[in-house]
Amino acid sequence: MVNQKYLEKAEVLIEALPYIQRFNRKIVVVKYGGSAMLDEELKANVIKDVVLLKLVGFKPIIVHGGGKEISKWVGKVGMEAKFINGLRVTDAQTMEIAEMVLAKVNKELVTHVESLGVQAVGISGKDGGLLKCKKKYSGGEDIGFVGDITSVNPKILYDLLEKDFLPIVFPIGFDDNYDSYNINADDAACAIAEAVHAEKLAFLSDIEGVYKDKDDSSSLISELHIQEARKLIEDGFVGGGMIPKLNNCIEAIEHGVNRVHILDGRIPHSLLLEIFTNKGIGTAILREDGEKYYHEHE
Amino acid sequence: MVNQKYLEKAEVLIEALPYIQRFNRKIVVVKYGGSAMLDEELKANVIKDVVLLKLVGFKPIIVHGGGKEISKWVGKVGMEAKFINGLRVTDAQTMEIAEMVLAKVNKELVTHVESLGVQAVGISGKDGGLLKCKKKYSGGEDIGFVGDITSVNPKILYDLLEKDFLPIVFPIGFDDNYDSYNINADDAACAIAEAVHAEKLAFLSDIEGVYKDKDDSSSLISELHIQEARKLIEDGFVGGGMIPKLNNCIEAIEHGVNRVHILDGRIPHSLLLEIFTNKGIGTAILREDGEKYYHEHE
Amino acid sequence: MVNQKYLEKAEVLIEALPYIQRFNRKIVVVKYGGSAMLDEELKANVIKDVVLLKLVGFKPIIVHGGGKEISKWVGKVGMEAKFINGLRVTDAQTMEIAEMVLAKVNKELVTHVESLGVQAVGISGKDGGLLKCKKKYSGGEDIGFVGDITSVNPKILYDLLEKDFLPIVFPIGFDDNYDSYNINADDAACAIAEAVHAEKLAFLSDIEGVYKDKDDSSSLISELHIQEARKLIEDGFVGGGMIPKLNNCIEAIEHGVNRVHILDGRIPHSLLLEIFTNKGIGTAILREDGEKYYHEHE
Amino acid sequence: MVNQKYLEKAEVLIEALPYIQRFNRKIVVVKYGGSAMLDEELKANVIKDVVLLKLVGFKPIIVHGGGKEISKWVGKVGMEAKFINGLRVTDAQTMEIAEMVLAKVNKELVTHVESLGVQAVGISGKDGGLLKCKKKYSGGEDIGFVGDITSVNPKILYDLLEKDFLPIVFPIGFDDNYDSYNINADDAACAIAEAVHAEKLAFLSDIEGVYKDKDDSSSLISELHIQEARKLIEDGFVGGGMIPKLNNCIEAIEHGVNRVHILDGRIPHSLLLEIFTNKGIGTAILREDGEKYYHEHE
Amino acid sequence: MVNQKYLEKAEVLIEALPYIQRFNRKIVVVKYGGSAMLDEELKANVIKDVVLLKLVGFKPIIVHGGGKEISKWVGKVGMEAKFINGLRVTDAQTMEIAEMVLAKVNKELVTHVESLGVQAVGISGKDGGLLKCKKKYSGGEDIGFVGDITSVNPKILYDLLEKDFLPIVFPIGFDDNYDSYNINADDAACAIAEAVHAEKLAFLSDIEGVYKDKDDSSSLISELHIQEARKLIEDGFVGGGMIPKLNNCIEAIEHGVNRVHILDGRIPHSLLLEIFTNKGIGTAILREDGEKYYHEHE
Amino acid sequence: MVNQKYLEKAEVLIEALPYIQRFNRKIVVVKYGGSAMLDEELKANVIKDVVLLKLVGFKPIIVHGGGKEISKWVGKVGMEAKFINGLRVTDAQTMEIAEMVLAKVNKELVTHVESLGVQAVGISGKDGGLLKCKKKYSGGEDIGFVGDITSVNPKILYDLLEKDFLPIVFPIGFDDNYDSYNINADDAACAIAEAVHAEKLAFLSDIEGVYKDKDDSSSLISELHIQEARKLIEDGFVGGGMIPKLNNCIEAIEHGVNRVHILDGRIPHSLLLEIFTNKGIGTAILREDGEKYYHEHE
Repeated sequence: MVNQKYLEKAEVLIEALPYIQRFNRKIVVVKYGGSAMLDEELKANVIKDVVLLKLVGFKPIIVHGGGKEISKWVGKVGMEAKFINGLRVTDAQTMEIAEMVLAKVNKELVTHVESLGVQAVGISGKDGGLLKCKKKYSGGEDIGFVGDITSVNPKILYDLLEKDFLPIVFPIGFDDNYDSYNINADDAACAIAEAVHAEKLAFLSDIEGVYKDKDDSSSLISELHIQEARKLIEDGFVGGGMIPKLNNCIEAIEHGVNRVHILDGRIPHSLLLEIFTNKGIGTAILREDGEKYYHEHE
Repeated sequence: MVNQKYLEKAEVLIEALPYIQRFNRKIVVVKYGGSAMLDEELKANVIKDVVLLKLVGFKPIIVHGGGKEISKWVGKVGMEAKFINGLRVTDAQTMEIAEMVLAKVNKELVTHVESLGVQAVGISGKDGGLLKCKKKYSGGEDIGFVGDITSVNPKILYDLLEKDFLPIVFPIGFDDNYDSYNINADDAACAIAEAVHAEKLAFLSDIEGVYKDKDDSSSLISELHIQEARKLIEDGFVGGGMIPKLNNCIEAIEHGVNRVHILDGRIPHSLLLEIFTNKGIGTAILREDGEKYYHEHE
Repeated sequence: MVNQKYLEKAEVLIEALPYIQRFNRKIVVVKYGGSAMLDEELKANVIKDVVLLKLVGFKPIIVHGGGKEISKWVGKVGMEAKFINGLRVTDAQTMEIAEMVLAKVNKELVTHVESLGVQAVGISGKDGGLLKCKKKYSGGEDIGFVGDITSVNPKILYDLLEKDFLPIVFPIGFDDNYDSYNINADDAACAIAEAVHAEKLAFLSDIEGVYKDKDDSSSLISELHIQEARKLIEDGFVGGGMIPKLNNCIEAIEHGVNRVHILDGRIPHSLLLEIFTNKGIGTAILREDGEKYYHEHE
Repeated sequence: MVNQKYLEKAEVLIEALPYIQRFNRKIVVVKYGGSAMLDEELKANVIKDVVLLKLVGFKPIIVHGGGKEISKWVGKVGMEAKFINGLRVTDAQTMEIAEMVLAKVNKELVTHVESLGVQAVGISGKDGGLLKCKKKYSGGEDIGFVGDITSVNPKILYDLLEKDFLPIVFPIGFDDNYDSYNINADDAACAIAEAVHAEKLAFLSDIEGVYKDKDDSSSLISELHIQEARKLIEDGFVGGGMIPKLNNCIEAIEHGVNRVHILDGRIPHSLLLEIFTNKGIGTAILREDGEKYYHEHE
Repeated sequence: MVNQKYLEKAEVLIEALPYIQRFNRKIVVVKYGGSAMLDEELKANVIKDVVLLKLVGFKPIIVHGGGKEISKWVGKVGMEAKFINGLRVTDAQTMEIAEMVLAKVNKELVTHVESLGVQAVGISGKDGGLLKCKKKYSGGEDIGFVGDITSVNPKILYDLLEKDFLPIVFPIGFDDNYDSYNINADDAACAIAEAVHAEKLAFLSDIEGVYKDKDDSSSLISELHIQEARKLIEDGFVGGGMIPKLNNCIEAIEHGVNRVHILDGRIPHSLLLEIFTNKGIGTAILREDGEKYYHEHE
Repeated sequence: MVNQKYLEKAEVLIEALPYIQRFNRKIVVVKYGGSAMLDEELKANVIKDVVLLKLVGFKPIIVHGGGKEISKWVGKVGMEAKFINGLRVTDAQTMEIAEMVLAKVNKELVTHVESLGVQAVGISGKDGGLLKCKKKYSGGEDIGFVGDITSVNPKILYDLLEKDFLPIVFPIGFDDNYDSYNINADDAACAIAEAVHAEKLAFLSDIEGVYKDKDDSSSLISELHIQEARKLIEDGFVGGGMIPKLNNCIEAIEHGVNRVHILDGRIPHSLLLEIFTNKGIGTAILREDGEKYYHEHE
């Protein structure tokens, strides 16, 4: 006889059916960062989750940063990392190091995905002219080669998806003078999701999600229409670091992304659980008329 | 916190990864019959299993019979079902009823698949000239419109697969005079699997699999190379009804099918379990050089 | 010397030139029913006509019913056919029989077309989700599984035409609960012609066409603009059974079909004659601005 | 009632069915010359015949000459046409005139075909490098720019057929020095038919066909295997002008053309009758194993 | 060591880079006429120029006339060329000669291009129904078969370009009665450039360009916006023969051609120089908002 | 008047015609290294040369190293570069630095190409599984993560070329355990050229070419058949560093590359000159039966 354990396995697979159908051939952009990039086991889980999405017919794109690793290498060459208003002061040499380190992280991810039998291609925002940008000032101050995205040319992404590759992107771009700029990975993920009309944009980071009250960790919100999100910011219920992230989410929705998720990357398989179960993990931001469908947080 | 139950779900999905990869875009022919067609719950399970295969990138084709239902309708019109050597004696009117009943069963399956959001097309062996046949004699005796397949034209199947439909086939064909013939569904599944170079052919029926000793139900064999299968028959260890089925398996392997499975359709999700776990369900017949990879039966 | 007979043959072929050109790669929906389905010789003629259309570059689709055959089989299983306002009262078992019988008729037509060397595929309105419907009430009364078409998904038809098959459709569909419904074949032909933007829709049935005066069989009308057709109905010149058929014609024209024909299926090759000669057979319904081009009835 | 005349028309169309099927999408090369080019009515018939072939799914290619018209224009400019062994002595100016006249004839044919609603493109053997040639000597004597074909590049023909044009070719080519040469139209038709693997090559000219005895006009042969044709030449039964034509036929068959016809262009619609009826017009040359299927000449 | 000469060659190629980029896969229509057609060396240069454009990724189309050659052949057959208001009086026989001569010139160009290894196809305005026209009257007077273009069907050009041929067109078309007409080559080039949305239309003729003052040959204008061109005509600064040519240019720009050039065909490689250097040769006519970018004439 | 300078420019472009034709749509692999990578002006020239090749219809692929830059960064982090037999001893951290530095160099090249208006994508041997390798031992000694290529999967290169990108590759790959390895750039260029069946493989480095006598710098060889190359090595006329490079050339030819070039990267535009003139730059290695076509070195 087949024992109960196997039947339960079959049930789990069967339960995934409607979710697989809903996203079939849809583009899902995953912003990958935080602890889920540092902890080897969490990292392995995230990669497996994305590979699974690919294999069951989704079209995932990974966008990743690498802030901590950059700081480490800045240190290795005897320099000191400097930040103004949370933005890394990026002189020419820091810029070089940032690009090198992000490329190294990128190729690690490529290797990891390839080791699971899925073909990946790692690119920067320079390849195929993906991300054009201009200098970003921090409160009017020049902080070096930190860039704001001015346009996205998604051709290379569409081409790689068409040819069945999983694109992995790190956020370095160039401006009209072809100078290099370091771009915030959240911004890059958001701009890319908009440009490819992603069905879903998921931020994997070290926060649980959005709270109704920033001082009450039991007030996590499962689903949020953008008008509610805007109001939370206006009313001052959303804390500091959360504001740019939430604004990114709002902007992505406004530009045609269907659903944005803030996921806790510290929970194993949070991406998979969010997509394949009716268990809301973190906070989903919806269009003005988007249907809320999660059960209550348990 | 995400509770354990959800993590286990994620693990099950992740475990399916290598199986999804192995069969990506491969054709799997499922011969569907026996109890799994009569019991409503088993039926629902089989359809969900096949739909899942479709959605995760396989190319399943269902071939089905409907013997019991035919006998029921033969009775309804006041006739009596007659069999010689296990073959239905098929006069002109029985032939008509067989075709009507199989078509009805076929459209039920189509409806069932469509209700799960996957587009299905039900065809007979006449459509697109799929199955050409000739009269089959039973020990030299003419038993009417019972057919032996003489050739398969797989164009319609390739076209439907290319256009992303799930083909569901019932085994009625015509001969060179365009007379209709009823064909054994196992034979049809086997011939179709050969013609489309299926990666896998699975027989869902009411037997556990092949026994080392036909009289010892604890002697179920997990995996069998065709040379072993041939020997079992020669040595008389395989019982009556099993012989034609096993010969079909051997022939399919000989004509290029990679792996043939005899599955117990009475076990819920046996098809899914066979494909997505390392739990061997029933008996797999392998090529002479095929690798055995199942764990022991538990 | 080549005798006169052969020269006349050549002339007939040459005369067909402009008609072949006009319909090259255009879709023509043929509603096939009535005597032309029962008389073996008429049947053979119709099939040859449609096959010829296919071979000279048209894209014909056959939609057929099978009312008399259904009644016969309802009788065979000891039930009685019941009609209310001309609609068959269709309980669950009648529905099953209707589907079976129509499928049988369908496969006979498929076989007939295949025997002439053209590849045909027979489908119902369930296959590929072609015909969605809802329960139709007869004067407010529930008469069982009789359906009104709510939507048409022509994908399967376009796919089959692209792959060079001749599609043959029988009018059974399902509703939102995936229950089966019997649909009037005229309605199905009309809805399909609209959905595929057919150049022409031809009804082959047992009437000569539309009369100026329903009581005067010498008053057959060759061509009729829809505004004239609407007026004939309003003014009460059109008799009972004709009204729904004429309304179907009007609706088809309103939804983009270019020309609808009511043909007498009892005349051999009436379809071919209508298309390949300037001899109007039956009655053509034209768009408001359609050009009348037939000679007088002879 | 539909009168008898119309029914007979329908029957003629139906009789064409198997012929249309046999040649569907097959290439048919028609060598067009002789009286059928000079008589306006015969010309109109030939063009209609070829247009019909195009419309019912064949892929015809016309190859034409224009000998008489060339001589006329040679005269107009005050020169005299000169022939040695039936070959036109072609000095530089005669070559120019030949090309101009053939181009004029070509564009007349193009116009004629276009007027029937089919798109035609007229080319010479220079366009797309279709016909490469070298100087042909007549019994060792240099007779000017008369060419023997050395190679055929059928790309332009395949491209035009793919784009649904009817190609019309006149036989002027160039040699390795890009000098122009006049080529015998029969030779060109034969070489082109070989290069495109034509199903059929038809010579329309002013002869009835091949006679068993060249001196007995009642001895016309309907069908001839190439071995028989070779023997007729060896045994001296075939007259002078016939020998090169018959050799062309033999060579075409040897290079893969399925069936070659010598048709009497003076009989109206002889091309159509040959293809669409079982009436053999003229003489068919078959492969060694080709099946003879004509009825006796009537 | 590599000597200076070679380095300079490399520099010239490198300088061509931006021009190659600007026109990559763009259609360029070249009206070819005047001395550049009569002088063998100039002719060889023009053909090489066009072949180079083809090879580096442009899509050139040549449109040519042949007026002087026509007059020569009209003389050869003992007729006299007659002109009214600069238009050739074209009776039926002159029409025949014009078509023949243009075809001959056309095939010479085809041969020339083929000899450089690029595949060319020569067509008239009749082929593929490229140029439809109607009779043109000269001051109300019937001057025979002189045509005004009424419509252009560019299918044949797009098809030939797609298949990588270089199309070479001579301007003979037919009217609604399929009568032949001789068309002005400038008009044909203009209409074709409009129909295929050419990036550039270049007239190669025996004039230097447009002068500010028609009586001052030192007043050549390099670039001219269409509004300036219109004003020059209104103000009477443009001389007689120039007016129709300039109007053609204006019309082409108005119908979507990006840039029109009047080039002096007597300067070797003027086409190449115009396209590949910042040296303005002749006069460019620009859109109202087109950017002037030439250096001064040297 | 157009002055002489411009005419000479036109002549240079025209002279390039046959070379453009010969390589149209052919793949050319350029191994880029040495001084041409360090000197900014030489670098700009090389990039322009490759971009020109791309624009005139070639399909170039750049493979580059970055040895000196790696050593610089190894020093920056306080480590020391170590070499055994000319191979860099590559511990885990050196491997990391090598990958980072090569990625940085790669993105500089990508940016450079993009700035000239051509779309480039920079990849490593890991992306798309391009280069699989295994550990290379140096005289039996383990020198760390230095790899020998075991297989090439060119899919990503074909896909990028098809989508009109210029691929730029740096030679880092992984082995069966997905460990990273540094690969010699010459080896990588050679293996890639073989895998994509390149028409030409060009090594840009700091040597003039191959000498007949390694001690006589006036004995540079223009063209060399592989059998001659093999003999030079056997006979000891080729010096140390040259031997592996020459062996690479020989192997590439043996595996289907048509022509391999050793070019002096210190000569501006040596790549362009080699391809677009009959001036042999450096040494060409030809197939056994390859035709020598260079003029003598000047």
